[in-house]
This record gives sequence, structure tokens and C-alpha cells, in this order.
Amino acid sequence: MRLSAALRHACRTSRSGAGQVRVLSPRGSSTAREERSAGWAPVRGTHYTSGSSGGSSAHSLSLQSRSPRLRAEHQHAAREIIEKSREELASVLKAHPAIKPTLAIIQAGEDDILLEMNTMMAEKVGLNVMQICLPRHCTEEEVIEEVLRLNEDQNVHGVFLCLPPSILSRRILNTIKPEKDVDGVSDLNVGRLVSGALSEGFPSPVAGAVLELLSRQDASLAGKRAVLVGLEGPLKVILQYLLQDAGMEVQTSRWAADNLQKQVKQVDVVVVMGTENTDLLPISVKPGVTVINCGSALMPEISAAEERAREAECWTEIGPISAALRMQNVVRSSVRWVENQQYQTWTLRPLKLQPLSPVPSDIEISRAQTPKPIVQLAEEIGLLPEELEAYGRTKAKVRLSLLTRLQNQPNGKYVLVAGITPTPLGEGKSTVTIGLVQALSAHLKLNSFACLRQPSQGPTFGVKGGAAGGGYAQVIPMEEFNLHLTGDIHAITAANNLVAAAVDARILHEATQSDKALYNRLVPSVNGVRRFSPIQLGRLQRLGINKSDPGTLTPEEVRSFVRLDLDPAKVTWQRVVDTNDRFLRKITVGQANTEKGHSRQTQFDIAVASEIMAILALTDGLADMKSRLGRMVVGSSRSGQPVTADDLGVTGALAVLMKDAIKPTLMQTLEGTPVFVHAGPFANIAHGNSSVLADQLALKLVGEDGFVVTEAGFGADIGMEKFFNIKCRASGLKPDVVVLVATIRALKMHGGGPSVTAGAPLPKEYIDENLQLVSEGCSNLKKQIEIARLFGVPVVVALNVFKTDTEAEVDLVCRIAEASGASAAVPCHHWTRGGRGSVELARAVKETAAQENDFHFLYSLQTPIVEKIRTIAQKVYGADDIELSPEAQAKIEYYNQQGFDTLPVCMAKTHLSLSHMPDKKGVPTGFILPIRDVRASIGAGFIYPLVGTMSTMPGLPTRPCFYDIDLDPNTEEITGLF
Amino acid sequence: MRLSAALRHACRTSRSGAGQVRVLSPRGSSTAREERSAGWAPVRGTHYTSGSSGGSSAHSLSLQSRSPRLRAEHQHAAREIIEKSREELASVLKAHPAIKPTLAIIQAGEDDILLEMNTMMAEKVGLNVMQICLPRHCTEEEVIEEVLRLNEDQNVHGVFLCLPPSILSRRILNTIKPEKDVDGVSDLNVGRLVSGALSEGFPSPVAGAVLELLSRQDASLAGKRAVLVGLEGPLKVILQYLLQDAGMEVQTSRWAADNLQKQVKQVDVVVVMGTENTDLLPISVKPGVTVINCGSALMPEISAAEERAREAECWTEIGPISAALRMQNVVRSSVRWVENQQYQTWTLRPLKLQPLSPVPSDIEISRAQTPKPIVQLAEEIGLLPEELEAYGRTKAKVRLSLLTRLQNQPNGKYVLVAGITPTPLGEGKSTVTIGLVQALSAHLKLNSFACLRQPSQGPTFGVKGGAAGGGYAQVIPMEEFNLHLTGDIHAITAANNLVAAAVDARILHEATQSDKALYNRLVPSVNGVRRFSPIQLGRLQRLGINKSDPGTLTPEEVRSFVRLDLDPAKVTWQRVVDTNDRFLRKITVGQANTEKGHSRQTQFDIAVASEIMAILALTDGLADMKSRLGRMVVGSSRSGQPVTADDLGVTGALAVLMKDAIKPTLMQTLEGTPVFVHAGPFANIAHGNSSVLADQLALKLVGEDGFVVTEAGFGADIGMEKFFNIKCRASGLKPDVVVLVATIRALKMHGGGPSVTAGAPLPKEYIDENLQLVSEGCSNLKKQIEIARLFGVPVVVALNVFKTDTEAEVDLVCRIAEASGASAAVPCHHWTRGGRGSVELARAVKETAAQENDFHFLYSLQTPIVEKIRTIAQKVYGADDIELSPEAQAKIEYYNQQGFDTLPVCMAKTHLSLSHMPDKKGVPTGFILPIRDVRASIGAGFIYPLVGTMSTMPGLPTRPCFYDIDLDPNTEEITGLF
Repeated sequence: MRLSAALRHACRTSRSGAGQVRVLSPRGSSTAREERSAGWAPVRGTHYTSGSSGGSSAHSLSLQSRSPRLRAEHQHAAREIIEKSREELASVLKAHPAIKPTLAIIQAGEDDILLEMNTMMAEKVGLNVMQICLPRHCTEEEVIEEVLRLNEDQNVHGVFLCLPPSILSRRILNTIKPEKDVDGVSDLNVGRLVSGALSEGFPSPVAGAVLELLSRQDASLAGKRAVLVGLEGPLKVILQYLLQDAGMEVQTSRWAADNLQKQVKQVDVVVVMGTENTDLLPISVKPGVTVINCGSALMPEISAAEERAREAECWTEIGPISAALRMQNVVRSSVRWVENQQYQTWTLRPLKLQPLSPVPSDIEISRAQTPKPIVQLAEEIGLLPEELEAYGRTKAKVRLSLLTRLQNQPNGKYVLVAGITPTPLGEGKSTVTIGLVQALSAHLKLNSFACLRQPSQGPTFGVKGGAAGGGYAQVIPMEEFNLHLTGDIHAITAANNLVAAAVDARILHEATQSDKALYNRLVPSVNGVRRFSPIQLGRLQRLGINKSDPGTLTPEEVRSFVRLDLDPAKVTWQRVVDTNDRFLRKITVGQANTEKGHSRQTQFDIAVASEIMAILALTDGLADMKSRLGRMVVGSSRSGQPVTADDLGVTGALAVLMKDAIKPTLMQTLEGTPVFVHAGPFANIAHGNSSVLADQLALKLVGEDGFVVTEAGFGADIGMEKFFNIKCRASGLKPDVVVLVATIRALKMHGGGPSVTAGAPLPKEYIDENLQLVSEGCSNLKKQIEIARLFGVPVVVALNVFKTDTEAEVDLVCRIAEASGASAAVPCHHWTRGGRGSVELARAVKETAAQENDFHFLYSLQTPIVEKIRTIAQKVYGADDIELSPEAQAKIEYYNQQGFDTLPVCMAKTHLSLSHMPDKKGVPTGFILPIRDVRASIGAGFIYPLVGTMSTMPGLPTRPCFYDIDLDPNTEEITGLF
Repeated sequence: MRLSAALRHACRTSRSGAGQVRVLSPRGSSTAREERSAGWAPVRGTHYTSGSSGGSSAHSLSLQSRSPRLRAEHQHAAREIIEKSREELASVLKAHPAIKPTLAIIQAGEDDILLEMNTMMAEKVGLNVMQICLPRHCTEEEVIEEVLRLNEDQNVHGVFLCLPPSILSRRILNTIKPEKDVDGVSDLNVGRLVSGALSEGFPSPVAGAVLELLSRQDASLAGKRAVLVGLEGPLKVILQYLLQDAGMEVQTSRWAADNLQKQVKQVDVVVVMGTENTDLLPISVKPGVTVINCGSALMPEISAAEERAREAECWTEIGPISAALRMQNVVRSSVRWVENQQYQTWTLRPLKLQPLSPVPSDIEISRAQTPKPIVQLAEEIGLLPEELEAYGRTKAKVRLSLLTRLQNQPNGKYVLVAGITPTPLGEGKSTVTIGLVQALSAHLKLNSFACLRQPSQGPTFGVKGGAAGGGYAQVIPMEEFNLHLTGDIHAITAANNLVAAAVDARILHEATQSDKALYNRLVPSVNGVRRFSPIQLGRLQRLGINKSDPGTLTPEEVRSFVRLDLDPAKVTWQRVVDTNDRFLRKITVGQANTEKGHSRQTQFDIAVASEIMAILALTDGLADMKSRLGRMVVGSSRSGQPVTADDLGVTGALAVLMKDAIKPTLMQTLEGTPVFVHAGPFANIAHGNSSVLADQLALKLVGEDGFVVTEAGFGADIGMEKFFNIKCRASGLKPDVVVLVATIRALKMHGGGPSVTAGAPLPKEYIDENLQLVSEGCSNLKKQIEIARLFGVPVVVALNVFKTDTEAEVDLVCRIAEASGASAAVPCHHWTRGGRGSVELARAVKETAAQENDFHFLYSLQTPIVEKIRTIAQKVYGADDIELSPEAQAKIEYYNQQGFDTLPVCMAKTHLSLSHMPDKKGVPTGFILPIRDVRASIGAGFIYPLVGTMSTMPGLPTRPCFYDIDLDPNTEEITGLF
């Protein structure tokens, strides 16, 4: 809260906690002083009785504030309301000690008695009070400016405008957020009230006080008659509605009305606004009639003459009760705010799907469905507006503060979609994932979330095309999914390349400058003062130099501080681009004259292969991400020490570049169910799974009975193994079910079917029924089921059905799968039918998730690196043993020395076979797994053994798919993405 | 509008244009058939008169629908309303023929008579009707889904829910957007009505019909009495309010009330809801009393029994008038929609500024000011919600459709901020630009927009720091401005590098494949069919091959089609990164074995040096951008022909990558005034000005009396010259004023002051008064003023005052400036005081802009290239002549041959001197400008002669500023950006 000083003269902001609030004892034990301070005693009301001040009649509705009995009754009424509100607020504060419910008061000029009454009651209730004092003759604009600020303040749960009527415009009233309009006078709240939806808005405290007074006099108001004199606008409408609702007959009149006297004589209750014509009343009303003046409960009088009048008569009778009811509304607003912070039940409104046959292209299907505004989807799944950062109309980042808000909410079920060993014929893991959540959410009405990887943009324009699913199981709009999305990969590219630029620049600067020159530049004198930056102090500490004054370092200390002494031949950090650019696979940099001959050979990787991507996928928050970024090793010094991003001084800048990328992106499926898209690390040199954070957010959002479905790259031997051993270990999350995806075609290939070539017609083995091939290919499926069972997690096999598959083939696969340990095996038709085609799968997943499971890791982190590798090779891949190259051996020893031996292992192996030999389909046996080299991603937190050569930069084919991609400049429609 | 078929059984959607609507002649000439078709004739109302059907009394309010006179009167009333609405709509449609105002009706089940009446009246008025037919027993959710869709439909200006009361919930009513709630029954519209703000919502047609009927009977209703029987909810409240507002005394009652008969006997008007108890009435009312039944104007009866009843009695009397009033509301809604589409007056709410002294760091100032939600700023400046794409809370892209919407709106004044020749001491053009708009908008209350370049991220982490202005003249949040913003530069990087990857991949593929293999891959057989893609057809046409069947090309044609035959030594397209990475200044790519020896030397430029950035800055829309992207020349073939992006087939993909980047980004200044940030091309090899599109959008938004202030890079001799000759030529926009920025310090350096070194204390010449140096340095200022005057544009000199400047120095500069042709010269204090410090400048700019000016280009496009260069060299730089290298000469001849000679010239010259010699300050004379080489950006549309060597890739210093940049993981606050 920043308020400009000029506007805040004489402003007193009380932010006392509940502990400092004076508490009034609920039953009569309070002293007069306490009552005075609470603002409603002594009540000295302006009031009207018939003729004389004594009051002769004993009419049941008679209200004579001057009588001690009634005065006490009024005190009692206000006190009861205050006490109830205090108790209610106290119980809220007990459960949520961090919140600071606040009544904000905007006033023009100094405090007056009405204002004091309200602030004192607020404190009595336990509310904080924020007083904003504008100049006495402030403008509408000034008030609106303050209201807009209060609207944004999370702690302010009520706004009371204590302003003269000349300032208090409808525009001001309607600027207050309806949920903070505790006087209930905004158009919307008035509309709600008169539409009978009182519980959504706030009853006007003034009207409420009138009713409170009347109903305390008489149990039933039904049939009684009232006239409202001089009331206008919302208050007139509200009071009329409330009195009629209580069964009264209500007339309205004006001060100038000819028949006013006659009217007044016929009624039981007179409610007036304003005091200018009060002379009229005492002589008019019949004995015992109740007269209530609403005026001064609303506006503080400000002229000196009126102040004197008020001194004599004080406020009129409804002031205290109305103030008490205002506090009740603020407390109610706080309670609503707190409730709103709790887990919200979903009100998901699925989008209808009308699948066409034959199935159109992916982009056609995507474009034919109008996505819900992302803000609407967010609301449906219980996200608060302040947790959302929209990026256009169909994408939004979700803030991590959600994790704190819902920290006590139990997680939903956690489902992993994995596949058999991939073949060129594809399996459709992404479509199964999306089809499954469409079925769970839109058809079984179970909260569910898909958590997907963000695809690299490179393949989108290369060979692969989109990665948003396909057919009637897609994320929409698919072009947004496949292109820049919310810029996360661009941020990673920028961060990665800043490190690379820093590495080479540092090598050059160290090579061309003396220790002293380097030191003078690294720790410059600014306005005569030399100071280490915090990140330099960190480096000093790592070097064992416990000094903070740059002038006190010895020349040796200066030398070890300024020289990272990076060995150009041992720089492991590579540059990245998010483009399939094969010519960057091996390059020489630094050939310009300005680099003085310090050229060296290096390479670019595709952006998703950056270690920063792996970090994004594994981190659990900003602090963790920053420390992981700092730990990233960029190479070795000539003396063999690892050099980190922290040593380069670049960590803070990296965190700044990644501050938005850490927030998952919300999108939707074709059926309008929620999807998180976040992180997409390479599945070989990294772990190939979407982010821990997206899963954590989604597990909170779906709630205890909901489902989060995520997908692991490549076959289960790679993506799933890493999901369990690396991702689940990092997150602490426990998976409930593995969905293992297979297709008849792919199984046939595993069973020995012929190889296929893109563009050429498919061999008949894949089109005609061939139970033999299917049966033999199921060996791979069986093995992958066994691998999942190794981790103690139950498996549901999802058979992604193609139109050429025969019933016998489908039955065969399901039978074999169930016989091999799968809890269920289900054919799926999501591609052609959307969620409806995956309902059976969804049911099977739901049932299986209800079972107890015995999830455990395959190895302990304390196991030596070699043993970790051997365990995976033998138990997962089915190798007889492993064989380490001398280079691998040496690296492992180096990592052991550096203390990196307790990291998990991330195997970089071909995905095309369970073995290291891409052409060995089915279940290869009798092989020794060769470990060519071992590398480390210390920031991401794993060691990655290389089995064979891994390409980290795809290329463009002769006819990249960009030939078909186009944008219509008039409609802005994209064609050619698939 | 997509509606799922299952929900739309029996649905009839009439979208007839106004021409097809049956028009009822306004004065009695209509036939009975026409009246029937209009839906209100014959009126056969249920009605009540005293006792007998004849009606004995002649009470002025008596309403006897069965009497022919009254029936005719009703017809006349409805007809009058319809006719007036028809005329109003016709005049709207005449002015805006493209709009299709539509009444949407959601109905449950088949059409009934109420519905038919409404649709016929709608067509009569000239409205389109969209009927959405849900199943008779539809759910609340189904209705809400349809309502949400209608809310988003721009053509739907009114929604009529023709549903049984059992379905019609408050939730449904409140789902309708208030601006489409033509029945006026949402909470907000009811609240508006009873708060007296009828003009903002819609009067309920039913209540309106009651009033219409009554007031047609009697000129004044004042003092008359009415009772409302059986009315509930909003309608009761609305009617009561309206009748009271007309001066009536109104009572309410229920059918079950004991005293109903008594009440009814005392009043002049009885309004009832429902027909179940109608027996009661005829015997109760006194003679001549008007009885009106609202029931069947609201709900269609649906049971067979009721249908029969209706057959007998038809609808009750207010049906036709109420339907007519509904149409009136729809027309009113259309008018509002159209008005909303027009230029909106700004309601800018500046943010208060309380400058501190001494001035804190830029990031501290930025963080101390809470920006307005960008959605709020957009609303204040008249942007429509659908024109905005928010990116988080403080940035939003603005859609180009705005240009169409406001095409008839006159432009505001167009102001360019340029500078004297830059020195290391800086001038502060950006702060002057921002300070000026802060002064214009927040202090002089003149609409104004700043249009700024997006800075490269490279320097942010290198040496320069931020570019969002500084001190109290900044764009906020400055970290958002300086980092990814909305991803435009990332998009440019992706597009640029896709071209680069395509170039090298194509060279490799052509080098390793036969013509036939290339052809088979480029034009593959898909499902047995070979087809050229559209972009390939374009290449064929350029080659003069007018064939479209791939099978018919001769081998020679195939060869010329498949072989771009790029000469690797003549590839001019470079890769880019948005990082200061000096080691990429010269590199060798393609050294991996997979590239088979096709390595070549190339370089990376900083991303903002990409030709695609220059295109983004100069384009006027998607179509133009796409064609510019296609024209980009990437190199030459071995036969010397230019090879373009179109030849590579990559144009569509580039347009897709750039589809969001083309939309300018809206941000705000420290004082909450609007800023566009869009494009930031290099100021030497490109033209160094922000985008044409942002300026065009801003000129429309500020309106005729407003100001758009934009900034040109480097000194006026470079940035301003290119602004006039290149940017204004491309956009057709005419500048009104040049603001020329200078500082005393920089002028002293031009006057011969000593050189300065970063970090070292400033020499005393720059701190103490030195009128001699100032006076001599003004030569540069004078020359730059003269350059602006060459183009016929008046100049205001803005002297950016530092605290060390003396009054005598300031006076001297102002005097010299005015003597040199400046219209005014004004000292500015925006850095320390914000907009308030630039008010004098703002006034001077306003006055100067009001003068007529004589803007013209310096050369015609028809002038030969050499002459264009000579003109700039002599007239702008003050050179004696130019001298072309043989290489430059050869290039010019080549461009002449290629027909590129009519492009403007974009000089690539040092910005540190008016000459080509960076150390020549002041006004160098007597030099010959050497033209080393000449290059071309054909897509961007200019030829750029190189004067000396231009670095297109900055480097990192020994201590880059990233050492100071950090992110607090808890508060997410950034430190160290400046």
C-alpha cells in the first residue's frame, strides 16, 4: 500500500493486530469508559414522540430513545451484533493467523464522531482499520483513485466511504469491488438484494439497522404500515424491499408532498432521511408511532452549526446499530474471502465435441473448436484471479503461490502414461494422455488435469509436426501449443546462451589481462569505494577466503579469486537454439580478430537439451531453481576443478531470465478440460518428463478424488524409469497407476514385421490381421509391464486402436497384457471419438488407482554410480552386464571425488530398443551394455552415462514441413500444422 | 458461432439482412396480413373490466382490450415503438453497413406464439434473429453454455430467454452480459434501474409495457394508486420503482393476502402476475379500474390445456407492447455497441508521483510505483476488451483490428525526439520522450502516447543496463520492459534462425542429391498424388514455368526448380542471438561428419540486427509483412541471381512465427500514461526507429488533439534522417515537430572538452561553468537543427538539465538554439521531477505542433543510388563528396540490374561523429565520405552503404552488469537492473 503523502495529511492508519483490540465483555461487565470507546454509549438519539418528550402511549412499536429502557436496549442490540462478529472473526483468525482483515475508511477532512464510532467498533470486533484522509474538498477522481487502490489490496475486506453526499457519486459507489462494498450500495449489490439474493451481496447496514430496531420491538411486522419520507435512491429501494419482505405495507413520500401529514397519521412507522424538515414530524405523528431518522448514520455533518447541534443531540438512534452491522458485513466479507482462499469445488463446463468421420486434420479439428476464455477455465477449476497471468485469451501462467494457499489440500491420484518401445509407426502416448483426461473430466465428471511437456519448436518446422496430441484428443489451440507458447523455451535459450557468452568472454579476459587488471575490473572502485558483490563473496567462501574487504586479499588470494582458469578443451557448456540446425552440430567460434586467436571447437544443441530445461522440470520453486542454476558446472579448470555458474557470477541474471518460465502454462483440451504445459527436457541426455511444479499444482487443484495424468518420453524403459527414479525422487510424489500405451502395428513390428519407409505404402502385415506377429510382439509389452511392476506400481494397458486392427488382434493383446500382470487392458478410440472413446480406459484407471500400491525406487542414492548403472541395465534393459570404457571409468572416479556420487543416474540410451542396439526389436537378451562415457548435470542433479552416440541437434530434411505452413493475413488462420 | 447439432434440433436461424425484413408502413396502410405477421394483430387480450364485458365506467385509466378502440390503440402503440426502432436501426445500418445486429433467442422446445411474436417483430425492426432451440427439458447448464457463447458473439446485441420459469434461474439471468440483457433482469441492471441509472442498463420491457399502457391513458399518473398482486423478484421491484417514480402510490399484495379484495377496491390500477387466481379479480375491482396481467408476456405456456386456453383468449394485453419494447432495447443495445466502436474519449487516471531527492536508482523508482492493471489503462484510453491480449498484469498486445475500427478517426500530432551527436556522457533521449508524454498527459491533460523501441536483452546483461528511461521518467515495470517483454525479439530470433538453418540444409541437400532425388523429395507423392505447394508454385512462376502439374516439368525445368544453387561464399543471411556473445562474430559451421565437409565461415549478429526486425518496424500489416518476409534475399546463386526466403519455401512459417510479434505491446510510464513498445532495429545497418504500426495505432488512439512522441536512435543525422526518409516514406505519416535533445556536458565535449573514462571522476570542465566550451559545442546542436529544417519540420530543443549545469550555461544554449532556427529551446527536469519537470517543454511542443509545416523528403526514390548517398553525405553530414570503393561500385551496379535502385538508402555510419571519423566532434568539415561496401535488405526495403566497419555483435566486458543482478526468491523482487 503506497499512498501519496499529500493526500494523506492527518491520516491515521491503525493496523493493530487482534491482540491490541479492546475487547468488550459480552455481558454487562464493561465500564462506561469502555462503552464510550466502543462508540455506542451513551446513546443520545434525536427522536420523535407524540407531542411531548414524555411519550404517553405504549404502542408496541413505539421507540423512544430517551427512555433509559430503550437506550439500554439499543446498546444491547449493537453489543450483541459486535460480540457475535468478534467471535466469528476470532475463530477465523485462529484458523488463519496470517490474514489481517481490514476495514478501510475513506474520509474527507478530519475524524468526526460518526467516524470515530465506526473505527472504535471495528477495533472492538478485532478488525484492522485503515483510514485514508482526503482533503475536505476532494474530487470524485481522488476518491476513485483511492478506491481502485483498496480494490487491489488483499487485506482490505470492506470499504466505508465517510464522505459528504456532494462527493459520494454513483460512479464512486460502483467503483468499489462488490465483494468489498460492505454498505451494500453498489448497483450490483442493490440488484442482488432486491432480486432476493441477499447472501451474495451485503445488506445495507442502515436499512438493516432500521429493521433490527423494528423487529426487536415486535416479533412480527406483518400487516404493519410504514411510510418512507425523503428517502431516495438505493436506500429507499432497499428499505422498501426489506420492509415489504417482512410483510409490511410500505408507502413512500417526499418532504414536499401535500398529503404527507395525512400519510404519516395513518402509519405505524415513519422512516425519514435528513433533518431539515423535522419540525414537521413531532406534531404529525400519532401517539406511539416509531420515527427513525437514517440521515446521520450515513453522512457526518460538517458545518460548525451542525456540529453544535450534534453536540446537543448526538447522533440519531440508528448510528450505533448501523455501525455494528457494517462491522458484521466486514467480518462476513472476511469469512467469504477466507472461504474463497480454500479449495474450490470445480464447476467445469466441458466443451461439446461432435467428431466427424473421416477424422479431419489436427489443425482443422483444433480450429473448429472455440476454446473457452482461459480466465473462465481458471475460474471453473478454482484458481483465484490473482493466481493467473493471462497470455492472450487461450494461455495463462499460474503463480506458484497456489501451492502455499492449498498446502493442506490432499493430493489427487497421480497417473503416468508410458509406452512400449517406440517404432516409426508411433503409439500415441500424447493422444492417450489427452483422451484419458477428456474421458475422466468431461464424461466421468472426475476432476482431472493433463500435464504435458512443451515441445521444441525445432521439429514443428522440421519433420515431426505438432505435439499437442491429435485427432479428437488435442490441446487447443494447437498452434499456440506448438509455437512460442508463453516463452519458456525462449527464456531457457536466453539464459543458456548468457552462460555460454560469459564462459568464452571470461576465458578471453583471463588470457589477456594480468591478475591486477582483472581484479580492478571485477571489483571496481565506484565513487571511491570497492566492494564485492554478494555472488563474489560466495566464490570467496568456496575458495576458503573469509574476507569481505577487497583491499585485504593477498596476491595469491586475488589470483585464485580472479582466475577461473577454465581449460578451453574442457568446457562442457554448449550454446543452444530452438531450431533444427544441423550445421551447428560442430562449429569453431572466436575466429574474429577481436578474439585474438582464442578460437575453439564447440557445438550448439537444440534448446530443450539445455541443462536449464532439466532444472526447470525438476525444481520445486524459485529458491531451489536459483541454487540449481548456480551449481551448474560449465567446465573444468586446468587443475581439474569444476567451474560453476556461480563462479561466473551469472546466477542472479539466470534466475531473473527464468522468473516467469517457472510458472506452468494453463491450456485446455478439445473438450475444455484443463492442461498444464510445462518444461520439456530431452528424453535421452535428460529425463524426458514435464515439470514437477505443474504436477504439484495440478495434484492440489484436482483435489483428493481427482486425477493428474502426465506422460513420460520414449518407452517405459527410459521415460518411466526416469520418471520414477529421478522425477518422483525429486518431487517426493508417489505415482498411483502406470498407463502403458501400445498399438497393434507397433507390436507387429516388435514381433518381426517388416520395416517401413515414410511415404511408401504400408506393408500388408500392418493392414491385414496377423495374430502371429501380434503375439510375438507382445513380448515387448510384457517386458515393459514387468518393468513398471518392478517399482510396485500397477499397470493399465491402453491399446490405441486403428481402423485396420481386427477384433481378434485387439482381444489377443488385452488377454496377453492381463496375463502379464496388467491390472487391466483396454482398447481406446480417443483419436476418432475424443473422451467418449476413452471412457473404458478412464474407468479402468479409476479402479486401479483405488488399489493400494507399493511404490519404491529401483536403487538407493547411496549405491555407487557403477552399481546404479548396472542395476538399470540388468533389471530394466535385460542386459547381462555393463562394460565401462576407460573414459567412463575415469569420469566416475572424478565424480566420486567431487562428491557427485550420490546423484541418481539418467541413462542416455537409444529409445528404439530395450538394448543399446536400435534395430533389436522385441526383447533383446544376452547383451553387454557398453558405457562409452559418463557426464553430469550437477544443477539438474543427475549423472548421465552415454550408451552410444546421442545427437542433440536434429536437422532439416530436404522438404521440411514449413513448405506447407502458411498464415492467411486476413483471417489470421494458420494452415499446414499437423 | 458453432452450436452442437444435438442441441440444435428444430432450430431455425434467421440471418436475413435488413433488405429482406418485411416493413410495416408506419401509417395505417398495412394489410391485416401484414399486421398478423408483425405479431400484434389482432390483439385478443385477456382483460378485466368491472363486472360485465361491456364496461360501464369511463374512468380515464380504464383499459378494455376487447373494445375496438383500445385494441387499435394497443396496435398503434406497439407499431409506433417498432417504427421508431426500425428507423433508428436503419440509420445505424446506413452508417455501418457491415454490422449485423442480432437478437438471440434461447428457447426450450418448439416455437410458440410468444416466440413467434418476438421473432416477427425483430424482423420487422430489421434485426437478425438467431434462435437456439434447446430440448424442452433442458438443464440450467445447457442454457448457461449457450449464453456464454452468445456473450462472446459480437453480432448478438440482445438475448431473450424464452424459457419456462422452472429453468429460468437467477444464475442464468446473471450469466448474460449486462450489455446484452435486453430484458433488464440481471442483478446489475435491476440495481442500475432502482439506483436511477436507467440509461446504463435496460428497462424491463414488461414493466415498460405496463407504464406505456398507463401513460398512454393519462398524461399524469401522479397521485394515482396502484397495487401489484402476485409479482415477485426483480419485476416487482422494477415496477414498483417505476410507478413510484411516475408519482404513483404503490402497494404490493399477494394472491393469498386476506385484505386483497379491500386493497384492490381502493386503487386505480391493478397489476397482476399469473392467471391462476384471475377469478378473484373481475368481481373485486371497482368500475373503470385498469387491470393488467404481466404473466404471459414473460413465459410461454406449454401444456396442451394452456394452449387451448390461449387459443381462446390469446395473449394478454401487454405482450405486443412488451415485445416491441424488447426490440427497442435491442436496437438501443446495437446503438451502444456501435457507439462503443467509435473513438472513445480518454478517461486517463494518471498515477501520482512523489519524487524523492536524491533520486533513487531506476529499479527502486520503478518498483516503488504500483502500475495500473494494464486492462484498466487500456479501458482508459478507449481500447475495446477484444482488442487487448494481456501478457500478465502489466503488458498487453494490442490487435491491429483497431486500425480498421478507427480508420476514420483523424490522427494526432506526430513528434519525433532526436538528439545531437552522442557522446559517452549521454543525452537522455528516452527520458525526454517519456518525460514529455508524462507532462502532456498527466499535467497538460492532453492525450499522448510514447512509442519506444524494444531494447535488446544483450546489453541488459552486458554494459548498458536498461533502456526504459531513467529517474522519474520511466516505463514501468522496467524489468518487464528490459527482459522478454512479450517475446517479439525471441520470435524474430526463431524466424531468423529458421531461415539460416534452411539455407545451410538446402546447400547440403543440393550438394548431395541428384535433380531427380531432390525433386522427388521436394514434391513427394502423398497417397499417390504429387502436388506443388502454393509457395512452390510461386517459385515456378518466378522461373517463368507456367505449369502446375509436377509430372509435366522438363528435366531442365526440374533442374531450375530444385536447384537454388546458392553460392556458399555469397550467403548474406546470418544467424542471430539476443546475447552479447563476441565469440560468435566469426565462426565456422558444418564441421560435424554428418555435414560431409560442407563447412563454411559465417557469423552471428545480435538479434535486433536481423532484417526481420527491420521488417517488423516498417510493415503496415500482416499481408505486407508476409510479402516482405518472402522477398528477403539470403544470398546469391552461383549465376548471380538473388535467392529469397520464398525460394526456400519458408515464408509461411516465418509469418506464423511472427503473427503475434506484429502486435505492439502496451505498457505505461511512471505516471500511468500509455506507451507502445514495438520493434527495435539496429540504428546503423538498419533504420533505428520503433514500428510504423505502433505509431499508427497511437495516432488513432490519441485523437486529433493528441500527441504521439517517438524516438529515433543515435544523433539526428542518423536516426532522424532515417525516420524521415525511410520510416515516414514507408508509413505515409507526416511529422509535426522534432524535439532535439542536448545536454550541457555533451555540448562541452563537442566544444573540445577532454575525453572521459568510465569509473574515473569526471574532469572539472564538465562540472564547473564553462561558457566557452558550451558555446563552441553548440555548433553540433546548430548543425542538427539545420538538418531537421532541411526536411521542413520545426524544431524544439530540449535541454536535459543536470544539477551541475549553471543558469548562464542553460541560457546560453537556449539562446543559441533559438538563434539557429529552433522554434523554442527549453530546459527539462523530468529526470528529477517526472512530467512536472517537462511541462514547459510540453507547452513548447504543443505550440510548435500547431504551426503549419512543410515536410518533404530529402531525395526522390527515382534518384540513382549514388546520388542518394551523395545527397545525404553532403546535405546531412556536411561531407565535400563521397568516394566509392570498387566493391561498392560493383554492388550498386548489381542492385541497379536487379531493379533495387528505387529503394531508399540507409547509411551505416558511426554515430559518434557527423563524419565517418568517430573522434571528430562538433561539426567536421572538408572530408570525403568513403563508401566501403553497399548491401541490401530487400525485405525491409532499403540499400545500406557501409561507411567503415560496423560491429553487429557486442561483447561482454570483464565485469558484465549481471554480477549485480539478482532475484529474491521470496519476494520475487529483482535487484541490480538500472
